[in-house]
Amino acid sequence: MVSAIKRFFIGRPLKSNMLGEQKLNKKKALAILSSDALSSVAYGPEQILIVLITVSATAFWYSIPIACAVLVLLSVLILSYRQIIFAYPHGGGAYIVSKENLGINPGLVAGGSLLVDYILTVSVSVSAGTDALTSAFPGLHGHNVAIAVAFVVFLTLLNLRGVTESASVLAYPVYLFVLALFVLIGVGIYQILTGAVPADLHPQLGAPVAGISLFILLRAFASGSSALTGVEAISNAIPNFKDPAPVNAAKTLTAMGILLGLLFSGIVFLAYYYGISPLAEVTVVSQIAEETFGRNFLYFFVQGTTALILILAANTGYSAFPLLAVNLATDKFIPRMFTVRGDRLGYSNGILILGLASILLIVAFGGHTEQLIPLYAVGVFIPFTLSQTGMMMKWIREKPKGWELKFAINSAGALICFTVTIIFFLTKFTQVWPVLVFLPIILYVFYRIKSHYLAVAEQLRISDRARAVAVEGNVMIIPVAGITQVVQTSIDYARSLKVDQIIAVYIAFDKEDEKKFEAKWKQWQPDVRLATLYSPYRSVIHPLMKFIDTVEHKANELHYRVTVVIPQFIPKRGWQNILHNQSGFLIRAALLLRKNLIVITVPFHLKK
Amino acid sequence: MVSAIKRFFIGRPLKSNMLGEQKLNKKKALAILSSDALSSVAYGPEQILIVLITVSATAFWYSIPIACAVLVLLSVLILSYRQIIFAYPHGGGAYIVSKENLGINPGLVAGGSLLVDYILTVSVSVSAGTDALTSAFPGLHGHNVAIAVAFVVFLTLLNLRGVTESASVLAYPVYLFVLALFVLIGVGIYQILTGAVPADLHPQLGAPVAGISLFILLRAFASGSSALTGVEAISNAIPNFKDPAPVNAAKTLTAMGILLGLLFSGIVFLAYYYGISPLAEVTVVSQIAEETFGRNFLYFFVQGTTALILILAANTGYSAFPLLAVNLATDKFIPRMFTVRGDRLGYSNGILILGLASILLIVAFGGHTEQLIPLYAVGVFIPFTLSQTGMMMKWIREKPKGWELKFAINSAGALICFTVTIIFFLTKFTQVWPVLVFLPIILYVFYRIKSHYLAVAEQLRISDRARAVAVEGNVMIIPVAGITQVVQTSIDYARSLKVDQIIAVYIAFDKEDEKKFEAKWKQWQPDVRLATLYSPYRSVIHPLMKFIDTVEHKANELHYRVTVVIPQFIPKRGWQNILHNQSGFLIRAALLLRKNLIVITVPFHLKK
Repeated sequence: MVSAIKRFFIGRPLKSNMLGEQKLNKKKALAILSSDALSSVAYGPEQILIVLITVSATAFWYSIPIACAVLVLLSVLILSYRQIIFAYPHGGGAYIVSKENLGINPGLVAGGSLLVDYILTVSVSVSAGTDALTSAFPGLHGHNVAIAVAFVVFLTLLNLRGVTESASVLAYPVYLFVLALFVLIGVGIYQILTGAVPADLHPQLGAPVAGISLFILLRAFASGSSALTGVEAISNAIPNFKDPAPVNAAKTLTAMGILLGLLFSGIVFLAYYYGISPLAEVTVVSQIAEETFGRNFLYFFVQGTTALILILAANTGYSAFPLLAVNLATDKFIPRMFTVRGDRLGYSNGILILGLASILLIVAFGGHTEQLIPLYAVGVFIPFTLSQTGMMMKWIREKPKGWELKFAINSAGALICFTVTIIFFLTKFTQVWPVLVFLPIILYVFYRIKSHYLAVAEQLRISDRARAVAVEGNVMIIPVAGITQVVQTSIDYARSLKVDQIIAVYIAFDKEDEKKFEAKWKQWQPDVRLATLYSPYRSVIHPLMKFIDTVEHKANELHYRVTVVIPQFIPKRGWQNILHNQSGFLIRAALLLRKNLIVITVPFHLKK
Repeated sequence: MVSAIKRFFIGRPLKSNMLGEQKLNKKKALAILSSDALSSVAYGPEQILIVLITVSATAFWYSIPIACAVLVLLSVLILSYRQIIFAYPHGGGAYIVSKENLGINPGLVAGGSLLVDYILTVSVSVSAGTDALTSAFPGLHGHNVAIAVAFVVFLTLLNLRGVTESASVLAYPVYLFVLALFVLIGVGIYQILTGAVPADLHPQLGAPVAGISLFILLRAFASGSSALTGVEAISNAIPNFKDPAPVNAAKTLTAMGILLGLLFSGIVFLAYYYGISPLAEVTVVSQIAEETFGRNFLYFFVQGTTALILILAANTGYSAFPLLAVNLATDKFIPRMFTVRGDRLGYSNGILILGLASILLIVAFGGHTEQLIPLYAVGVFIPFTLSQTGMMMKWIREKPKGWELKFAINSAGALICFTVTIIFFLTKFTQVWPVLVFLPIILYVFYRIKSHYLAVAEQLRISDRARAVAVEGNVMIIPVAGITQVVQTSIDYARSLKVDQIIAVYIAFDKEDEKKFEAKWKQWQPDVRLATLYSPYRSVIHPLMKFIDTVEHKANELHYRVTVVIPQFIPKRGWQNILHNQSGFLIRAALLLRKNLIVITVPFHLKK
């Protein structure tokens, strides 16, 4: 029944050789991998204005040069990630690039901070989308956490079904959002050109602003560049593309960069021209849309697709997290289970863990994950910086044809990303300090796991010196609880093997019972030795363990191996287990955990 | 570590032969077994007035004749339970008495309704006590559920420590409560006699009351008789008394009856004389205490001990439930685990289940379990009626010397209890109907469990015709995941036994891997047959099960037994399990549940 439910939600299992068919074409890839980046257009321009308003409304004209700086940063990032895609056609996330060019520790810093970041992506985007939704339908207020969790569950199921299927579902909202914003920007610019918008709503470019400082401008720039989170998603996910994967990925990346640049500059420009101030209750995009269309169908179209893409932005986390986890797991820094493909060929464990962790975060923060945005942004720029620096090293070391330009591009990228990171620490330290705590912890855990796997591999390796001492005989101990068919079956089985001694053990809670049982046994199985143990404290495990200790001690001298045969009867229906003492199960658990004994379970299935 | 925590809370384990020392003397028994009955003095009189006030304040004088009727009922109950104690010196709960004299079904009705009732006792008393506490300290309001749960946990731990220890802790509050009420009643009567209380506060006895009806009076009587719940506790718990148990139990019962009668009539009389009306916020006892003492130390002493005894009344449930459960479990109507004595010789499973069920009820009702009081009362009077009727049958059948008087007493008891039950159904049907739903369900479950145990016993019995077909040989299947020490150990072990064929099984997820592994295996273990299974859906269990099916089929023809040897490696620390696929565990579970296979687990303990 469990498997029927699973099949209903996730679909029938796919054969391993169908992997190729699960790969993405460019159109779907753009939808699935860029929703995070594109959705940030919905809040990036606003972030800039929120910083500038602390000075004065006149300062708003600075949003234009700041947006230009962000566009430069975007271009540099796109160009340098194109280089990464071709240099690392099997997936060049920050982890791989940093590890190969800077060493294992920078790689782990990049990998660890991205791992946490993707969880933040999911929680933050879903919460933001839920907020947009409950703002539109106030009746849903108070159910934010439940709705957000439901969305995470939905996205998790979608991704468990597999990448192409989720791409099909996600493509529409992403392209509708892009369409909506293009219509908005187009109509806005048309109105400006036709003079329908008064020209005096905005401060003049270059107007002197009292109280402006470099610090403020840098801060506004850092805030605006949080719109660039998600740009790295494509370079992580190259293996998901149809062949030729790197070419397709690079084209998709460029398309995304152009879309992101156009939408971002359009929104910043309209906001500036309309003289829009950030408000607590109404988003900047909503103000622009209202100014442009009035409250008609197009306004709600913009608002609706924005809410949708904010939720779907979470999907970038679902694409990137499992692939990063595979890379880390292959290097044995996180549990091996992340490398296993599920029924639908996705890395189900990564998808599930991501969903679970996001739900925990959403519940822990009561749905108010917006407090985590700066943390999330800094967690992206650290790996950005590391991978750009890694590429610099690569070009210096390899010096391919025309490496100087490539080096220049990555150097510019590294420098800007590093600057943005530093600005975050300088201007928002109270919000980003946790990264300094959890990164060392994550690195410690990575190393603990790695050293465990290495130790295990060492112990499992077949080597001549490790050959065990030859087994010269077998002793079997059968704990018995009565004179029943179950015990009979176990004794019969032990007799059918080459066993040098069979000992039945009975644990008595009172002396009288002990004597009675001994007498009955002698009559029933005169040729099987019975040891009775008196247990004044009514414990079964303790006296049995002591007895096994003694037997083991003697057996070791003779190079005999000790085996415990546990008769276990299995009721026909699950609920019936509650009607029976689970001593068989307890004994087995105690024996396996504490001792180097072999345990044989002889099941006795009840027929009714 | 778990065992150290357990020892801290519950105490060191006791030997079985220390059972005698755990028994109760009369003084402790009175405290531990009568807190439920005595505590009802705190609300019984009030219940009568609440019904009478629906007519008019003049009707209050009827509380005196009604109290007399309740006292008659009490005397009859005490007398008849004395008879039960001597007739059933090994514990004469309603279950035993009804079963032996009326048949198994009436016995199960009595037992089932008491089983549920004791859970209600605990939840209702603890919630009532918590209400009293939070009324005194309003700062605690809003934490009612948490406080009530904490009390239940405390009582559960106390009872797990053992009966004598809990008796010592509980004796003080019970005796202090009795003392407080005696002081209250004594001072009250003294003031009345010295004329300090005006004589015109109350209606004259026999004053005509407009609108009074038999229905109202019966209802008031039924409400008042809910003060008698808990009277049966002593007769259930005779085995807990020091020798001579029946004599001691009978004396304790009489003492309890006298105390209960005195306190009940005292409170009813003072309430009547002072002309007290029931109020929503202040209890009748509190009003009497304030009238008598003013708001001084004695007032708070009465209030404090009342709150305490309400909580401790729950303890009656803890004494009675496990003993009733033992009786039902011995007759195989509920799981056998209820007959097992824990570390401290109490029936820990009963105590734990009672605590758990009460917590669930408290949480489910948000601490407002007072809605359950009528249900609880009717659940007591059904078994009362049945056991009294049972005793009538016994006397008629056995006709011992002087049986006519005994018969008369039990007949009176049966009649009154039956009447009270009927009155409950007539006057409070909306609150007591659930008993008509859950009793049939409980009886059904009882019978299902019993028939399961009987079926199991039948299947386990050694009989010549059931002798299994002789085993003529053994086939062992070893699922292997690689070429490692773990596999080596398993193969070595299988070889040391008399096995006719050893087959290693490898499950490959791709064809290439399959071929590579076959080649490696041939080199490593040329004389162990290897079967490789290609699993396109990446499932381990399915192909393995299919393979085992095939092997089993062939083996059955040859009368061979099939054994699966599972190499399982066990990490040094628990958390490390997450780093390894738990395939060994999954395979074992699937095999044991679905097939009649023998499973050998060969552990490989990692040393680091």
